[in-house]
Order: sequence, then C-alpha cells, then structure tokens
Amino acid sequence: MTVSPIVLLTDFGYKDGYAGVLKGVILGVNPHARILDLSHGIPPQDLVRASFLLTSSVSYFPRSSIFLVVVDPGVGTSRKPLLVKAGEYFFIGPDNGVLSAAVKQLGNARIFQLNHPEYFLDSVSFTFHGRDIFAPVAGHLSLGVSPQELGEPCTGMESLDIPRPVKTDQGLDLRILFVDTFGNLILNLTEEQFSQWKRSGCCIHIQGKKRTYKIQTICSSSKVAAPGVVLVIRRRGMLPQLTPQVAF
Amino acid sequence: MTVSPIVLLTDFGYKDGYAGVLKGVILGVNPHARILDLSHGIPPQDLVRASFLLTSSVSYFPRSSIFLVVVDPGVGTSRKPLLVKAGEYFFIGPDNGVLSAAVKQLGNARIFQLNHPEYFLDSVSFTFHGRDIFAPVAGHLSLGVSPQELGEPCTGMESLDIPRPVKTDQGLDLRILFVDTFGNLILNLTEEQFSQWKRSGCCIHIQGKKRTYKIQTICSSSKVAAPGVVLVIRRRGMLPQLTPQVAF
Amino acid sequence: MTVSPIVLLTDFGYKDGYAGVLKGVILGVNPHARILDLSHGIPPQDLVRASFLLTSSVSYFPRSSIFLVVVDPGVGTSRKPLLVKAGEYFFIGPDNGVLSAAVKQLGNARIFQLNHPEYFLDSVSFTFHGRDIFAPVAGHLSLGVSPQELGEPCTGMESLDIPRPVKTDQGLDLRILFVDTFGNLILNLTEEQFSQWKRSGCCIHIQGKKRTYKIQTICSSSKVAAPGVVLVIRRRGMLPQLTPQVAF
Repeated sequence: MTVSPIVLLTDFGYKDGYAGVLKGVILGVNPHARILDLSHGIPPQDLVRASFLLTSSVSYFPRSSIFLVVVDPGVGTSRKPLLVKAGEYFFIGPDNGVLSAAVKQLGNARIFQLNHPEYFLDSVSFTFHGRDIFAPVAGHLSLGVSPQELGEPCTGMESLDIPRPVKTDQGLDLRILFVDTFGNLILNLTEEQFSQWKRSGCCIHIQGKKRTYKIQTICSSSKVAAPGVVLVIRRRGMLPQLTPQVAF
Repeated sequence: MTVSPIVLLTDFGYKDGYAGVLKGVILGVNPHARILDLSHGIPPQDLVRASFLLTSSVSYFPRSSIFLVVVDPGVGTSRKPLLVKAGEYFFIGPDNGVLSAAVKQLGNARIFQLNHPEYFLDSVSFTFHGRDIFAPVAGHLSLGVSPQELGEPCTGMESLDIPRPVKTDQGLDLRILFVDTFGNLILNLTEEQFSQWKRSGCCIHIQGKKRTYKIQTICSSSKVAAPGVVLVIRRRGMLPQLTPQVAF
Repeated sequence: MTVSPIVLLTDFGYKDGYAGVLKGVILGVNPHARILDLSHGIPPQDLVRASFLLTSSVSYFPRSSIFLVVVDPGVGTSRKPLLVKAGEYFFIGPDNGVLSAAVKQLGNARIFQLNHPEYFLDSVSFTFHGRDIFAPVAGHLSLGVSPQELGEPCTGMESLDIPRPVKTDQGLDLRILFVDTFGNLILNLTEEQFSQWKRSGCCIHIQGKKRTYKIQTICSSSKVAAPGVVLVIRRRGMLPQLTPQVAF
C-alpha cells in the first residue's frame, strides 16, 4: 500500500528548525509517513504568496496528498484550525484564506473544523499550532483516521482579498504579486483576462524605479488558477536591468 | 520494523551541497536510512544557536532518533568526535559543547569517543569530518551497530559558556541570543528566572539601535531548557520597529 | 530491493516551490521513489557552480543514483534534453555543459537524447522542462525503464568553458570560481597544477577590494576533479577581513 505523502508549505524559513520539528512530530504519530517539502521560504505571514504557490503546485502531486499549510499570522486568536478535502486532495491549516484559492480550483470541498484535541499534542501552545495541532492531525490522517473523526463538518471558510486588475483609460492597472527566484514577475491577471489582452493587442508597461519598461510578450503558466499570469523577465548576469523575453 | 530517523543539524547552509553529501554517505552505508533535515541554516560556527535549536527540538522527535550535529569550527584540531546516548536519543558530533545542553536536559548520558576508523570513510580529510566520520557512523548506528562497537566509553564532554543574566540595580541585564525568522527574540533567561521575574513584577527593556523598548510581556517556550526564554516581538510589515506582543 | 535514489540539483532556490513540484511529479510516477536534495541553492543559471558541485559530490552517493540536474538557462530553445550513464551513475538534465565534467570524470559515458514524449507529462511547457520532462523521466528510470526506452543514443555533449589558469611573469593568474558558505574560495586550479605549485614553492596572492592578500597555504579537496582546488580562508567573526588558514 502506498502512503499518502504529507506536503509541507510554511513561512518558517530555513534558519530556525521549526519545519524540522513539524517532521519530528509527524513521524512520532506515523513512523512511516512520507514527508515532502514544497517550500518553507514563504516570506513571513505572506498569505497571498503561499496561496499562489499552493494553487499552482497542487495538481502536480499525487492524488490523496495531504498539504500541511502553516502560514498563520493569527495563531493564538480565534481563527479556526481546518481540514479540507477538495478534489482528491487534503489540506490542513488555519482558516485565514490561505487555502481558499486551491480549494475553489479543485471544487467539491468538504470542510472540517479541527476540534478533537485527542489528536493534538498533549500540550498546545498559543504560538505554534503548526507543531501542536496541524502536524499531529496530518500524521493521524496519513494513518487512515477519517476527517470526520478529526473534526466537525462546517460550512464556509475565509477567502483572501487579492487585488484585481483595474481598468483605466490606458488599459489595465496591474499589480506585481511577487518576483520569483529567477526574476519572473507574477501578476494579478487571470488566464481569461490574459487571453482578452492578447486578442486586443494592447501592451503592458512595468513601472520600474528608474524608468518604465514596455513589455512585448508575457506568458501564462498553464495550470495556474486566477490570479496567476507569469510575466517572464529575467535579470541577466549582474546588470540591474530587466530584459523582456518571449516565452510559452 | 521502524528505522530510527537520522536528524541533520548543521551550519552548512543551502548553497554548497555539503548537507546533500552527508545524505549520500548515509545512504551508502544504510540504503534504508530515514533522513530528516532539522536545519542547515545555523550561522557558520554558531554553537550557541545550534545548541539552543537542538535542545528545544529534541523532545518532538521519536525516541531512538539519531541527531547528527555538525557545527564544527575546530575540525582538524584535536577536539574529539563523540557519540552520546542521553534519554532515549542518540547524538553524534564534535566535542565542542554543542551537544551539552541537550544531553544535560535529557540526563542519563553515556558518552563514547569515536575511534574505530573501520566505521569511517576510507579516506578522512582534515576539513570535513561531517562527511568522513560523523555521517558514516550515523549510518552504521541506524543499521544496529552498538555504540560500544563504534567508540570507546569516556567521561565528560565540553560544555558551552552561555552568558548568564546579570543582576544590576535596575534588574536583570539580559542578552539577546538570536532573532528568529519571525523577529522573535531569544533571551538568555531560564524558565525559573522567568517565573521569578513574573512574580516580582519587574519589567524588561530592550536596548535598540535608536531607542529603548519597554517590554510588557514575554513568553516562554514550554519545552525549552535553560537558556531559552522567548521574547515575542514581531516586526510588522516593513516598519523598522519592534512591537511587543502578549503570548503564551 | 533497494530503490535507486533520485538526487536533485537545481538553481530553483527555496522560495518558490519549484523544487517541491519536481518531487510531486516524481512521486506521481513512482510512489516509492527515494528523493534527496543535493542543493537547490545554485545561483540562477550558474552552470560552473552546478558543475563543480556535481563533480565533487557524485562519488559520495550510492552507485546507481540518478542525478536530476536542472540548471537550464536555455529552456525553450533547441538545446537537447539528455540522459547519461557514466560510471555507475545516471544523469538527467539539459545538454548545456553542466553534466560534462562529472561525466568525463566517471568515464565510460553512454548518452541518450530524451525524445520519447510518452514518458513526459502530458503537457510540456516552454519554460519548465524540469517539471515536465526531466522529473517524470527520472521517475520512470527509477521504476526500471531502461535508458534505451527513454531516449535515443547520441554521441557527444556540450562541455563548459571554464577559465584556465594563465601563466604570467609573476606566476599563475587564477580565478575565484565562487566563495562557499564558510568563506572558502574555490579556485580554477587543478590537482596537478596544485602539486606543481607546491613543489615550485611559489606563493598565491588574492587581490581583495582594499588590499592584496598573500596566501601561505592552500588545500585541495581530495575527491575533486579539475577545476577544484579549494583555498581555505575563513571569515572570522564579523571582521571584513580574510585570514589564511592551514588545512589538509
């Protein structure tokens, strides 16, 4: 039998060992757990970036994968701890909107509030629910404990408020959601909006610190839900300069 | 049968592949080894930080876990290579104090000097004992080779000299051991000292670069041995400012 | 039976989840795959650094390991996707020279161009062949699909143009290929050149930003192929100063 992988996505960084501790807790519950790092490099508390990364990655993982998503600025407040089944995947994390785009994309969501402390660590802190609640629940889920045993069905979950493109006299006013390792710019533009843009033949300008860049071509990452158009701009060499590049 | 996990804690960083090489060596000895990263982001040669991270994390890992701790500024000198059993855990690393706080916390220590080169790599360099000595020994231990076969019992080990709080007319003079990814400050204050401080009702000031911050409340990480009180202060957004926060 | 480990080496960094997605794809093909991170911290598109890291690490991994090397500035162009067997190891990646030094060191190379799209993901993008071509091929190879089934034999592969030492009136003019996490300088000096240098008793100067450093002793990493002499210089504490150190 194949064990469902547990996929970790956090803003814990790589200096402090917090992500390592999650793995220790999971193994303590399920010694045969299969644990994968999606990323621990989300900027602290950056829900938009985590949401985008999750949404654009989930379909590349095997069905029944368990995504443990801990970007949790509200830890210690009344925000709910959730387990969600959507499509063929499971998601565990705080109810702060970070899960909503991926869940909406997959559809067929069943939402559970984690309120059975017998599946938590014995002592639950106010500051580290990833370790004390979410990781042990992921371990138990991977052992075959059902969502119904781990929590109580509930309806609705928080969703993120991601800025939408604004139509102006000059065209679309876009936001750069973030810049990736390679210098690619991730924009708040949907696939549909992108298709319209291509048809209408208009152009995009990027307002840089020193000058405005006219972008010739953008590309869209095929599997990415809204928002998620990727503008391919690579910093070449050490030049502090952006170079547009044709792609896709 | 469950394999004991081998948990890696180093200052190797993520650029150079040194941590990856440890894993290759371990798998070469035990193809079924279970390898986990605790962290490779310890600042180079920062024994205090590695010691704190190890001490505060160890109890979250399954019993019989093997901690491979390589923060080793004295590599190539006469410092001893050690294997320590303490509590239900194993520790492998240099005798430079990095293991002492965790071992002391767990108690019941049995210390072995690694002096059986038949369990090392064939060629041992002067500069990378993590790869040539510690990793293969961890692999053999995970295969079931006993500590007695891997080394020779010895008494005593180095311990770290961590600055203690100093009483002054104004109260306690504390040190910030380090600042974590989230901006939390880790102080050289023990649980007991923290409890006394709470009872006596005195206050803490943090001497910042530009001004002094008066701290209203601090929190203590429940499982952390001395030193290890965590002062929760989060940098919010991009403001170069510290904001006290109630926690725990 | 032992599964051949799949060892990942990329310039994907740790922020974006690209490396995590590779793992998801591999597990989707082979749920029992054994996946190890060598490094994802290669500076973007730095072929020389990736080549050096691969060459100096490969012999520490078990035979039959599958190295998935994705540093791919030419993705989307006509550069070929390759599978190479050399020595007892397998390498999968773009034909841009990044594999050549390791393959040359191991010898006995058999090169295959990956041109069987039935082993790729259904949809292949122009910008992420690591995910769409190389990762699924690595998964299939680890399942036992033969190189002949995965690609077509071909002759020759690209090699990297690494700057060689230049003889001048003052001695050898060397380049620093990169500086590692610990401040060690990696030079473009071969083992043989290093041996000659030691015999001839000449000395090395490092041209720093503010002054010239005369280096007393250098060391060579025992298993490293050309180029690969390591000059051990450690930055001590916070001083902006280089200190030569005897090693090896």
